[in-house]
Amino acid sequence: MSEIKRLAKPVPPGGVIGIMGGGQLGRMLALAAARLGLKAAIYNDEPNAPAFQVTPLQLAARYDERNMLTGFAEICDVITFEFENLPAESIAYLASLKPLYPGQKALEITQDRFTEKSFVCALGLKTAPFLPVASGDEAEKAFAKIGGPSILKTRRLGYDGKGQAKVTSAQEAARAFENFKSAPAILEGFVDFAFEASVVAARSLDGTFAAYDPPENIHENHILRRSIVPGRLSKTQADEAKAMARTIADALDYVGVLAVELFVGKGGELMVNEIAPRVHNSGHWTIEACACSQFEQHIRAVAGWPLGDPTRHADAVMENIIGAEADAWESLARSGALHLYGKREARPGRKMGHVTRLKPRNH
Amino acid sequence: MSEIKRLAKPVPPGGVIGIMGGGQLGRMLALAAARLGLKAAIYNDEPNAPAFQVTPLQLAARYDERNMLTGFAEICDVITFEFENLPAESIAYLASLKPLYPGQKALEITQDRFTEKSFVCALGLKTAPFLPVASGDEAEKAFAKIGGPSILKTRRLGYDGKGQAKVTSAQEAARAFENFKSAPAILEGFVDFAFEASVVAARSLDGTFAAYDPPENIHENHILRRSIVPGRLSKTQADEAKAMARTIADALDYVGVLAVELFVGKGGELMVNEIAPRVHNSGHWTIEACACSQFEQHIRAVAGWPLGDPTRHADAVMENIIGAEADAWESLARSGALHLYGKREARPGRKMGHVTRLKPRNH
Repeated sequence: MSEIKRLAKPVPPGGVIGIMGGGQLGRMLALAAARLGLKAAIYNDEPNAPAFQVTPLQLAARYDERNMLTGFAEICDVITFEFENLPAESIAYLASLKPLYPGQKALEITQDRFTEKSFVCALGLKTAPFLPVASGDEAEKAFAKIGGPSILKTRRLGYDGKGQAKVTSAQEAARAFENFKSAPAILEGFVDFAFEASVVAARSLDGTFAAYDPPENIHENHILRRSIVPGRLSKTQADEAKAMARTIADALDYVGVLAVELFVGKGGELMVNEIAPRVHNSGHWTIEACACSQFEQHIRAVAGWPLGDPTRHADAVMENIIGAEADAWESLARSGALHLYGKREARPGRKMGHVTRLKPRNH
Repeated sequence: MSEIKRLAKPVPPGGVIGIMGGGQLGRMLALAAARLGLKAAIYNDEPNAPAFQVTPLQLAARYDERNMLTGFAEICDVITFEFENLPAESIAYLASLKPLYPGQKALEITQDRFTEKSFVCALGLKTAPFLPVASGDEAEKAFAKIGGPSILKTRRLGYDGKGQAKVTSAQEAARAFENFKSAPAILEGFVDFAFEASVVAARSLDGTFAAYDPPENIHENHILRRSIVPGRLSKTQADEAKAMARTIADALDYVGVLAVELFVGKGGELMVNEIAPRVHNSGHWTIEACACSQFEQHIRAVAGWPLGDPTRHADAVMENIIGAEADAWESLARSGALHLYGKREARPGRKMGHVTRLKPRNH
């Protein structure tokens, strides 16, 4: 495979941003590209992708179909993605054809929970205690060291609580490992945190860094329910969270938007839970509360443009609309800034949209 | 022609909003529809329309091609337009097939400067003095009554100063009339105003009214240069402007967003200059400074949805990017919230984009 391409100069207006994945994140990225006079091309593995509704440049094919990837790269000036769990070979192939951001290092590290947590610890940042688990025997031994309750998580392909099981004994840990078809996993100590938070930030091609104010996040059934900004983080904690994101972004030589999910301990300490190498659900409030949203910020970064202003000019509460809750779209439209993602079926647990409510900025 | 269709119930998420015209206004309307989970279909009379870049549902055909209009109406749940100078017969035809908003009455009245100004006066609102001109002789007589300097304007198809000539004598008035190929015109007294302003407002299907704060507008070479909100209007004037827009919208049984351009006299009085039955350049600042932009507001209104909140949460200055100014896109991207319209050629006087700069709300 030939060497990796880098963007030599910014993608000019009229240029094409290729987006791998056509869900709501791809859709909102495409809408943000359009604001800037850039075209969005969407690649998705099934034909009813929400993002296909917002651009004529669309390709529905398997994520490993080589000639489709070739053709897609051909029409794009730069390529990015809306989710990190794409086949590594396809990503490497695309990166050999056109500049691809955030880039393979970020993907390789964040696609694997063990690699990711090891990377975070090596940077001197706190995480929950964790150990790798490659067998039922290792699961039992890990539980003996970490203690309970703890959580067994598959190393790859988990999201919204999928591939996770809470365990309270060595036997349960081994059983959970088998239930996940013996996929490589980690056992993670349970953190009795005060609340959850996240920081969404961007790093540009020239290394400029910009972070949004970190929201407090409320989860229900492992799915983000609500992001509140400002939440319960103190000014010091907010600054610390932004500094952590910067440390991570710099270490990854990151280009684009990333999100760092945090646990805020009862003593006030911040622990990294997860890194998402992409725009993030907990940053949706930036569409209304900041002049430059996380989506536009990501497009600016991967297109080699200067970053936009992440200043928050209003307080905001973002609430997800999940499954059949979307049936109430008419009253939701009355209640705030409504976003619906163009999904046809409101399956249980499926993110159908979100609503952001603004208040004058308090601090 | 069969009777006019009305929307019996709101267009549900997933429904199709048909937009006649694919310029920047159609483009921003389409982007706003997408936020709400609605699809946008664009009809434009040439194939490189900016709005074609943001939806796969697009039709390039003459505005009077009957079978194309039929097919377009077939895929739409409701139809609206980005500019008022569409062939009246095409509009009537579309309105016989699908609900069409703002509706024919608004179009008929606002397509003709004489009808429009007469309508405004009949509502008890002030305008500059004006008289209809249908011949060179009438031009001279009108000048004798109104005096100079005054402005001869064609009754139809004028925008950005096109079809307008300043005249300072009866002879000049007659000559200007001939220069416009003897098209029906009006002669309008020159208003020595303090500044210009506008009010962008919406009326929903059930008659609910919502107005944005009126900006002060600065024109250069008959083209909007800048909108400033708040501008020099007092609170009383702002309220009066909103009330004028409401009077007009109610009288037109209006559905959608309309803009009323105003002269603010040196004594503080407000005069109606023009009504635009559509989203308006002087309302672009609402994208960043309000939770619900004028574009989303228009989509909500024509789709039969509840109106959004027009509250301004920041002060804003919107500046148009005209012609070759767009070449400086990189520094413009640094300076504020940049919007580029996807136009390929930066012809002189052409609106290529705009940039909005926010400040914390002052009053």
